[in-house]
Amino acid sequence: MFEKMMNNVNTKCPLVHNITNYVTVNDVANVVLACGASPIMADDIAEVEEITSICNSLNINIGTLNSRTIGSMIAAGKKANELNHPTVLDPVGIGASALRTGTAFELLDNIKFSVIRGNCSEIKNVYGKTAATKGVDVNVNDKITEDNYKDFANLAKSLSAKTGAIIAISGAIDIIADSKKAYAIRNGNALMSKITGTGCMLSGLIGAYIGANPDNILDATATAVCVMGLAGEIAYDKIIQQNAGTSSYRTFIIDAISNMNYDILKGGAKIESI
Amino acid sequence: MFEKMMNNVNTKCPLVHNITNYVTVNDVANVVLACGASPIMADDIAEVEEITSICNSLNINIGTLNSRTIGSMIAAGKKANELNHPTVLDPVGIGASALRTGTAFELLDNIKFSVIRGNCSEIKNVYGKTAATKGVDVNVNDKITEDNYKDFANLAKSLSAKTGAIIAISGAIDIIADSKKAYAIRNGNALMSKITGTGCMLSGLIGAYIGANPDNILDATATAVCVMGLAGEIAYDKIIQQNAGTSSYRTFIIDAISNMNYDILKGGAKIESI
Amino acid sequence: MFEKMMNNVNTKCPLVHNITNYVTVNDVANVVLACGASPIMADDIAEVEEITSICNSLNINIGTLNSRTIGSMIAAGKKANELNHPTVLDPVGIGASALRTGTAFELLDNIKFSVIRGNCSEIKNVYGKTAATKGVDVNVNDKITEDNYKDFANLAKSLSAKTGAIIAISGAIDIIADSKKAYAIRNGNALMSKITGTGCMLSGLIGAYIGANPDNILDATATAVCVMGLAGEIAYDKIIQQNAGTSSYRTFIIDAISNMNYDILKGGAKIESI
Repeated sequence: MFEKMMNNVNTKCPLVHNITNYVTVNDVANVVLACGASPIMADDIAEVEEITSICNSLNINIGTLNSRTIGSMIAAGKKANELNHPTVLDPVGIGASALRTGTAFELLDNIKFSVIRGNCSEIKNVYGKTAATKGVDVNVNDKITEDNYKDFANLAKSLSAKTGAIIAISGAIDIIADSKKAYAIRNGNALMSKITGTGCMLSGLIGAYIGANPDNILDATATAVCVMGLAGEIAYDKIIQQNAGTSSYRTFIIDAISNMNYDILKGGAKIESI
Repeated sequence: MFEKMMNNVNTKCPLVHNITNYVTVNDVANVVLACGASPIMADDIAEVEEITSICNSLNINIGTLNSRTIGSMIAAGKKANELNHPTVLDPVGIGASALRTGTAFELLDNIKFSVIRGNCSEIKNVYGKTAATKGVDVNVNDKITEDNYKDFANLAKSLSAKTGAIIAISGAIDIIADSKKAYAIRNGNALMSKITGTGCMLSGLIGAYIGANPDNILDATATAVCVMGLAGEIAYDKIIQQNAGTSSYRTFIIDAISNMNYDILKGGAKIESI
Repeated sequence: MFEKMMNNVNTKCPLVHNITNYVTVNDVANVVLACGASPIMADDIAEVEEITSICNSLNINIGTLNSRTIGSMIAAGKKANELNHPTVLDPVGIGASALRTGTAFELLDNIKFSVIRGNCSEIKNVYGKTAATKGVDVNVNDKITEDNYKDFANLAKSLSAKTGAIIAISGAIDIIADSKKAYAIRNGNALMSKITGTGCMLSGLIGAYIGANPDNILDATATAVCVMGLAGEIAYDKIIQQNAGTSSYRTFIIDAISNMNYDILKGGAKIESI
């Protein structure tokens, strides 16, 4: 599936509308460009419907939620739905405050998302299971392991059935699922949690992949997750060689995304159908 | 002209007031510092007039326009005009939404800009010619080539006559013009469009150069464009040597700006008077 | 003292609530992660009290102050005080506008800060001595030198007695003081002023260190200042070796923070009790 998904990003060069947080917005834009797509960031209520209309997909991220942009998110999402543009929700920190939890559910009530991506605590909170969070980080009790990953795949399938969205859970093992089928992806490196925004970057990457592959959201999402994880491995090798640290790691991850091609991805992806 | 322009930046260390977007703001600040000037970012209506008063120039960028800051842009611009501080407008994405187009013209109606810098689609839209845009990217029909660059120079001269501003069109060949004279600059590298913010960074750099050279805005702008383009070439050589990617490219561009001096610039600038 | 301070950051992994500017927010988040803590950025009035309640410390930075977030800063600060969470204030650009000066004093009136960190001009302005500023940069007349650093230590002690906060003055020699005791720290490199946000990053780092060491704010702050300064030295050696520039310098500073350990810090810290 990878070849088709990647070719579509490269040939269509989709335009991705991002309403995202101000912490990692630059990295999100650079990742979208690195994979062969184009980003546009716009969050004012006076222009979001117009902007989303000229785009191929919409990425909504609540990482630094504020009252000014909640209405913009809803307006953009409704317009994207109307135009059948694929949409991704990154419910950053849902569970950490009533504002984030309430807004995430308001978005889910008003917008049909194609993909919902988060860490395990966030996805549990989307499900309505109260999961303890540690701010925007996953709770230690929500780690995905070889022992429990099939349970998380079932949780993801069930949440997909409930929401109609592809569910992408990021963790030591990533789970991507629709209501019937799931993938477990074993790419990535633990150091990715030591830089801010790898989750946000992945959601931007998913926005690019689903914008170019609207007819196969599950495989587009799984491909984006493999690209991100493999980039994390390639970058890790590089910082070990260079005795570098976490900021170089950030740089090398985006570098690896920009240099990714089908052969590299095919050789490095570790994906299991379950 | 380069030597005088650069010396003035280094000796005066101008303070540049930036009202810019939150996507590339960090890169803009670092580029302004890298070239020898100092940035200050301030966009609240309660302080923009005071802040612009202590600065040497003003850089307005509408990349993530929102209703809160439009009034701030106008107030700062009027104050800068009153104090005869040079001003630059970067009309990011003009044409992509009514808000951006309307605001750009509102800014042009209220503020006398010293420089207007954008890609070719953006500059055509400033001219009032309706140009299709692809979000914040240039439209494929608006590429500047060896065959058409003199036409674009004429367009820039004509728009300069209309607005009173130096016009800087960024493209494969950059065009810088006042109403009578134009420069074509053949520095830069196509990969610059694969990282976010090279345009914004250039506008910040122009802010620094015109802040230090208020008596020669045309040459100050052309020098800044050469610095940016040559930095793009030096950085490109470095990523090829290191087999690196687009995020390293961003880093190396700013590195090259910080290491730029008159000898490097004189040796590498490719500028033609037309 | 370093060993205990660092161990507490690594074992407690404190969560740091940051209400900060949009210029350097990404660097602040990455520095907090690099030192072993976790950041959360949240500035909406509807969630700041809840967010600060789940955190270990609060970092308030007025670098791109706007009317929307001043109330959020005060609400978060009062809640942090109520919960005895350590708090740090970075009064960026106090003195550059009435808004910044007025807000800084409003914050100081409403919130008991554990640490106030700024450059020398900013700290003088906090003291109520009118110091000329150059935007967000230190005024040339406020440089800390071998000839005057003991005077600045006395100023810091006196301001600490007045405010109850540990005072951290950043300069060629850094001064950290409570009302009775001061440290002079001679780490760092002049190039740190050529990238944006080294002050903001340090305030984030202090947030992490005081969050993990609430019972010894003075030593926690001094340790963070040594870590930042030494990282600036290690990174400087690296850019000289590689013939790199200011953007690589930024990367290498964060790398050095992520690779810092007790042995490196003990070997490199230059701290004097005065």
